[in-house]
Amino acid sequence: MKQTVRIEHDFLGEKEIPDNCYYGIQTRRAVENFRITGIRISAFPELIVALACVKKAAAMVNAELGQFPDTIATAIIKACDEIIDGKLLDQFVVDIMQGGAGTSTNMNANEVIANRALELMGHRKGEYGIVHPNNHVNCSQSTNDVYPTALRVAIYRKLEQLQGPLNKLQASFQAKAEEFSDVLKMGRTQLQDAVPMTLGQEFSAYSTTIGEEIKLIGQTKKLVREINLGATAIGTGINSPDKYKEFVAKRFAEVTGVPVLTSANLVEATWDTGAYVQTSSVLKRIALKLSKISSDLRLLSSGPRAGLNEINLPRMQPGSSIMPGKVNPVIPEVVNQVAYKVIGNDLTITMASENGQLELNVMEPVIASSLFESMNMIIAACDVLRISCIDGITANRDHCLHLVENSIGIVTALTPVIGYENGSTIAREALATGKSVYEVAVEHNLLSRKQLDELMSIKNMV
Amino acid sequence: MKQTVRIEHDFLGEKEIPDNCYYGIQTRRAVENFRITGIRISAFPELIVALACVKKAAAMVNAELGQFPDTIATAIIKACDEIIDGKLLDQFVVDIMQGGAGTSTNMNANEVIANRALELMGHRKGEYGIVHPNNHVNCSQSTNDVYPTALRVAIYRKLEQLQGPLNKLQASFQAKAEEFSDVLKMGRTQLQDAVPMTLGQEFSAYSTTIGEEIKLIGQTKKLVREINLGATAIGTGINSPDKYKEFVAKRFAEVTGVPVLTSANLVEATWDTGAYVQTSSVLKRIALKLSKISSDLRLLSSGPRAGLNEINLPRMQPGSSIMPGKVNPVIPEVVNQVAYKVIGNDLTITMASENGQLELNVMEPVIASSLFESMNMIIAACDVLRISCIDGITANRDHCLHLVENSIGIVTALTPVIGYENGSTIAREALATGKSVYEVAVEHNLLSRKQLDELMSIKNMV
Amino acid sequence: MKQTVRIEHDFLGEKEIPDNCYYGIQTRRAVENFRITGIRISAFPELIVALACVKKAAAMVNAELGQFPDTIATAIIKACDEIIDGKLLDQFVVDIMQGGAGTSTNMNANEVIANRALELMGHRKGEYGIVHPNNHVNCSQSTNDVYPTALRVAIYRKLEQLQGPLNKLQASFQAKAEEFSDVLKMGRTQLQDAVPMTLGQEFSAYSTTIGEEIKLIGQTKKLVREINLGATAIGTGINSPDKYKEFVAKRFAEVTGVPVLTSANLVEATWDTGAYVQTSSVLKRIALKLSKISSDLRLLSSGPRAGLNEINLPRMQPGSSIMPGKVNPVIPEVVNQVAYKVIGNDLTITMASENGQLELNVMEPVIASSLFESMNMIIAACDVLRISCIDGITANRDHCLHLVENSIGIVTALTPVIGYENGSTIAREALATGKSVYEVAVEHNLLSRKQLDELMSIKNMV
Amino acid sequence: MKQTVRIEHDFLGEKEIPDNCYYGIQTRRAVENFRITGIRISAFPELIVALACVKKAAAMVNAELGQFPDTIATAIIKACDEIIDGKLLDQFVVDIMQGGAGTSTNMNANEVIANRALELMGHRKGEYGIVHPNNHVNCSQSTNDVYPTALRVAIYRKLEQLQGPLNKLQASFQAKAEEFSDVLKMGRTQLQDAVPMTLGQEFSAYSTTIGEEIKLIGQTKKLVREINLGATAIGTGINSPDKYKEFVAKRFAEVTGVPVLTSANLVEATWDTGAYVQTSSVLKRIALKLSKISSDLRLLSSGPRAGLNEINLPRMQPGSSIMPGKVNPVIPEVVNQVAYKVIGNDLTITMASENGQLELNVMEPVIASSLFESMNMIIAACDVLRISCIDGITANRDHCLHLVENSIGIVTALTPVIGYENGSTIAREALATGKSVYEVAVEHNLLSRKQLDELMSIKNMV
Repeated sequence: MKQTVRIEHDFLGEKEIPDNCYYGIQTRRAVENFRITGIRISAFPELIVALACVKKAAAMVNAELGQFPDTIATAIIKACDEIIDGKLLDQFVVDIMQGGAGTSTNMNANEVIANRALELMGHRKGEYGIVHPNNHVNCSQSTNDVYPTALRVAIYRKLEQLQGPLNKLQASFQAKAEEFSDVLKMGRTQLQDAVPMTLGQEFSAYSTTIGEEIKLIGQTKKLVREINLGATAIGTGINSPDKYKEFVAKRFAEVTGVPVLTSANLVEATWDTGAYVQTSSVLKRIALKLSKISSDLRLLSSGPRAGLNEINLPRMQPGSSIMPGKVNPVIPEVVNQVAYKVIGNDLTITMASENGQLELNVMEPVIASSLFESMNMIIAACDVLRISCIDGITANRDHCLHLVENSIGIVTALTPVIGYENGSTIAREALATGKSVYEVAVEHNLLSRKQLDELMSIKNMV
Repeated sequence: MKQTVRIEHDFLGEKEIPDNCYYGIQTRRAVENFRITGIRISAFPELIVALACVKKAAAMVNAELGQFPDTIATAIIKACDEIIDGKLLDQFVVDIMQGGAGTSTNMNANEVIANRALELMGHRKGEYGIVHPNNHVNCSQSTNDVYPTALRVAIYRKLEQLQGPLNKLQASFQAKAEEFSDVLKMGRTQLQDAVPMTLGQEFSAYSTTIGEEIKLIGQTKKLVREINLGATAIGTGINSPDKYKEFVAKRFAEVTGVPVLTSANLVEATWDTGAYVQTSSVLKRIALKLSKISSDLRLLSSGPRAGLNEINLPRMQPGSSIMPGKVNPVIPEVVNQVAYKVIGNDLTITMASENGQLELNVMEPVIASSLFESMNMIIAACDVLRISCIDGITANRDHCLHLVENSIGIVTALTPVIGYENGSTIAREALATGKSVYEVAVEHNLLSRKQLDELMSIKNMV
Repeated sequence: MKQTVRIEHDFLGEKEIPDNCYYGIQTRRAVENFRITGIRISAFPELIVALACVKKAAAMVNAELGQFPDTIATAIIKACDEIIDGKLLDQFVVDIMQGGAGTSTNMNANEVIANRALELMGHRKGEYGIVHPNNHVNCSQSTNDVYPTALRVAIYRKLEQLQGPLNKLQASFQAKAEEFSDVLKMGRTQLQDAVPMTLGQEFSAYSTTIGEEIKLIGQTKKLVREINLGATAIGTGINSPDKYKEFVAKRFAEVTGVPVLTSANLVEATWDTGAYVQTSSVLKRIALKLSKISSDLRLLSSGPRAGLNEINLPRMQPGSSIMPGKVNPVIPEVVNQVAYKVIGNDLTITMASENGQLELNVMEPVIASSLFESMNMIIAACDVLRISCIDGITANRDHCLHLVENSIGIVTALTPVIGYENGSTIAREALATGKSVYEVAVEHNLLSRKQLDELMSIKNMV
Repeated sequence: MKQTVRIEHDFLGEKEIPDNCYYGIQTRRAVENFRITGIRISAFPELIVALACVKKAAAMVNAELGQFPDTIATAIIKACDEIIDGKLLDQFVVDIMQGGAGTSTNMNANEVIANRALELMGHRKGEYGIVHPNNHVNCSQSTNDVYPTALRVAIYRKLEQLQGPLNKLQASFQAKAEEFSDVLKMGRTQLQDAVPMTLGQEFSAYSTTIGEEIKLIGQTKKLVREINLGATAIGTGINSPDKYKEFVAKRFAEVTGVPVLTSANLVEATWDTGAYVQTSSVLKRIALKLSKISSDLRLLSSGPRAGLNEINLPRMQPGSSIMPGKVNPVIPEVVNQVAYKVIGNDLTITMASENGQLELNVMEPVIASSLFESMNMIIAACDVLRISCIDGITANRDHCLHLVENSIGIVTALTPVIGYENGSTIAREALATGKSVYEVAVEHNLLSRKQLDELMSIKNMV
């Protein structure tokens, strides 16, 4: 059976479009032009939904301001609502890697919405004389205000989504902090034995550090909610009616539930990528912390016999195709790698930002896709780390305590009384002879046994 | 209808595996453990095929050395051949982002091959007593030699693949160099008018620069063909029979057609990621050149009226949702973005390399996926750039010539005769009065008209 | 004349120290160990001063809490005050690139202060039995709380210093925005002619964008003022008396005038480098904006005849050794390069942060030196950019206006009336024929001349 | 006494120059324009010397081709020779961070050489009518061919310099490999106990890996010796006489002793920064390897009691201001930090390379300074690492052996006989009971004692 097609045209010519497609000629051209990754923009549903929200708010205001009749607005709004509800996602087919500063993504939305609106009005797809992708769906708009606005709201919501896994991860560390609050262990600085602490303190620090990131995300959300709707092409608002800017921000806030603010300087807002750079920096910081913690967990669980062996990670899978019984810290390892990917994306975003020119940064699509990739990976990594690693960690209490009692570092507790140089002497002697610090200290007769017992009570050191 | 399942076990317990699956319990665990990107290792078919080549070569040699009967080897080899032919790709289901240094990828191959071999021998999947993923398919091997070996051959072939699009792109630039060999235009340094050249020289330089990259890829291929098969777990060759190392390299070269070499120091080869870092550096260099050229094309085609407007890029799609008639350089723009992504991946690889520890770099999976992503994108970008941009570029000859004749920079040609300071005076005066350099030079009477005509012949300048 | 020396010892042995040196044996060892860059920590006087402030506050509190007699405290405080006043800077001789997590920097301070205090008390340098670098100057402290605390206050003050040049730069852009508020020019997106704007709007956007960075610095200052004094070695506060933590924060705030806060979780605070990462991210963002603006200025001033030529940068130096009269945008060019250096430093800091282990991040010295280098360069770049470039920019009004009137992009203003497709037709025709949009529009008879005149009033477009 | 001055002028005006200065007005302007880092180009003496070599070769050829009299050439050549001998270095005063693509550096050389030549001829500085910085010293040249040519030769020589320390470092690792060839120890993958190896193998791998870098430097030297002398402004050779290009390359090779080659495409060679990118990639790779090794050394020497404690690094300095007796791995730590700095510089160079435009990459100065900084730091780091760390490493033989005998990993040696699954059972049981693998294996009765003794001979495993 032959596929029915319709003919669409633009100022560069015409093209056949399969009649079951809601997208039109400009989307088609974009698909043909950008055969790069094979990943479509539908991979970022948050962005598609946010675009539909922009179109819906714009249609409302355009109708209010008399730009076109209510019947058209109603159909456009219904089409947008369907997209907001998750429908028609498969019609968003442009590659995530694209030239044109998001125009193809915007036109994909304009065309899908126009054609769905036409259908809802009882017309056939492609009858753009009635509802036009540019004249109606994109009315009072430009890609240059629509795309960044949608992007920012999509990022806002994704950051909100990220807070959940981080909150749970923090709670998981906190639970372990309490569980391990009485496990004495050696603290290490520069990988050298330092002074005692509890394993609970170790995990409590992880909890605190994740908590700081949650706070930072809150601040970042405030930054990204600034939009430039009404700026149109370059920030001067050309072709948008009076009051449009003001009205559309209000409507957009209602439609999305996001407390958006319109930038004070729309020319700047149209080219500025600072909010994306900042968001990526925050994602990088989260990645760095997850990576640091993962590396620590790998160190602390190293062994089982020729390593530190202070904790046990849950055994998730056989670790080796050749060494039977070997189990590896595969979960922290994958988190490290996620971090390196996020940091790589941060550089991509940095370079994209640096190469904006004059009234627009044309590199926004790679900024968008890199940010979504990073956020999706961090969300996944937090959950995987928590569920398949942190929650199941157990401590090797006896071994931890043995390392403390046997350590040289506890000599530190004596220095307030015997001074740094006597301390050094005892340390050196203990190390050379293999004796314990306590034994050597007793021999040196610098303190009474009672003093020694008091100073060297490990519980008092932590 | 209920899905039939089989029960598999490993030293951590047991799991139900749908009976139509060729992979087994370890793959299943890995799928559950690494829910990160949703992209499966089957996205890199070159790697899967190369893994099958390793397994095939190993089975040949294991049979030769009497590690197991020929019947088993024959079945394993047949199963490998199917994978090499592109079959069973959908059975490679582990996430590309994974912990474990590639063990899950290796075990995915071991299990699929074991089960397919069992079927080919008339047995049922899961009857590992007959053909075992570890004892047979992985015999004399470790992930730590199998995975890097497969990865290197996959990269080798991908680099080979990359040479085609680069060759074509170079030819395309060269054709334009010839087409534009008589188009006179201003050269620009620091975006300031410098001295004349031809547009052909501009494109010839692009051809030359791509040619250098093709050469560099050749050198890089030599670097990545070094393998560590026979190293097993840490390079000491534990559990691989005498002669295995030597024999398997020979067989592997036959199976793949790649002139592999076994590293002289297998301990080093097992942890060393230098070849990947170097490959990524080369990819970065290619990306930088493609990006530089793309930025140039965007500059040279800027306008149409308020820009340089020396060349016209093919008009690929309407450029704006609001500005009718606007056409943008969308193809070079997407190439710039590909470059930023490749450069980001290079950083990911750098960090992954830096974090190897002791006998193994556990971050190899993210190195692998980043390299493949970069190579795939560069291949796509070269073709898109050539077909949808370079091949269709036209020159605005008259405008180019007008800019030369009208320029200040051509005063440079007079300095060998009148000196730098007189040249400066003429330049300054021409600029201030709006006159041409020729006119001012005549007025200054420093040279005869004949001398002037000769020195200022633009054709002689280029 | 032979240099007089004194003999100092530590637990590794003894060394001769020239008697005119205030530093001692540990500093001497560090100098010998870290022969890397040849740049001494005295290159960052803010850090040295902040260290002296820590030592002063600690001495005050140690005396209050009876750790040592007032006479010693008084001498230490006086020595610190001298350093705070800029004296003894030449005694801080350790290389900025150093291992040991800052211990050598801390010991350099401890030794200089101890020896100067000894002198002030009438003793000879090296009489550490009376005032000891560790037992007295470093009393109740560890490098691991002293160094980050000093570093954070030094960064705080440097960020404060950075606000001045940024404020002035913003004002400079604002002044140009006003001066050019009536200069009509083409806006450009994707380097293609878009729609009109004023040159004032261009510069106003730069002013706005710098203003955002100033705000961000304010937020960052809040982040870096969190200190971990009292944490001692690993955050457990070992060897610091009760109440010390609380008292010393108060004293330190008085001594520095910086509203410091003690971290709630001192174990986390001792290893966490998040504040440095965040600061560097902010510096990167500033660098990106300065670089974007600089690139714009180079584009807008390109020419003089074969470029955009909308503005003139001040002529700072002859631009070429061979092309007389050529003047280049050397100031924006150097700002671009500063940006690339700052971005490189951000990566250095990222990697250093990622490689912290367990209770301490030992890479802090490279974080510190990279941050100071970046801040110093940005401060210099802002001043140079303002004084030697922005303040002297002039506009080529007539040329700017000519480009607008001659442009295709102004057809955009007609689309609300004639629609996107008619607009495209006019645009295409104007471009093909070389006619103006106005002429073609008149010919097409889609609007009355009156309508046309109204819609195409350029002033209304901006 | 008042400083005597001379007045110099250029086409922008005039300036007083202190009469003892060999540099002139253009250098002076550059110094005033680029107050950025405070570090002068004299910090890179290799670059200054290479510049003088270019000027010397050019003067020779200019005289040969009759561009100016031999008397002038002789004086210029003598002045150049003085600079080549290390004199006049303090006259190179421009900031390393500069706009203008190296013009200020080139003019600094032109002016110093002109003035010194004038003196040698018995004239006074500033008498440019006789010997002129542009007309004579820079004759047949442009910054755009002189600067890259000098830079490449300087890099060539610096790479040569780098080979020495790397050779010595490799030899040092090799010596330790031999010293430790009989020290049995556990190999570790993913920080988990794997199978046995010798400490000699560990160090042999370091030796091998450094050897690869030495080879790579050799290849890189070939790449950077390609020069573009004769290209002048943009590669078209404007203002250079016939045969100049050919003659000057020959002379330059003689003067420098470097086997330079002239690029086939001078237009490309004038803007191409690929060789710098490649050089920086190689430096990054060296840095990654040094960093990996340093991290390993820190791991292997961790302890002394709560870490791996397999080796002892030389004790270079007391490690803590609070913990007596603590000694830290300060040398590897500083090497890690050097690596992060080199990697940061690589990013700086990447961004600089990406932002070249049309006929020239104006960002070359930051490329140059970053490359020199990286090379200097690596040279220093190699020497420090070798002398203060590697050469003094000792092994804890008994402890190493104890870890092996006590390990689970040695079960791997049994699997060729008992299979992967029996191996897993034994491993699990050994771990759970605390018994040795040998004991458990005996109990399981899968092998005779004789077989066991043979298979488990650790010496056979390595």
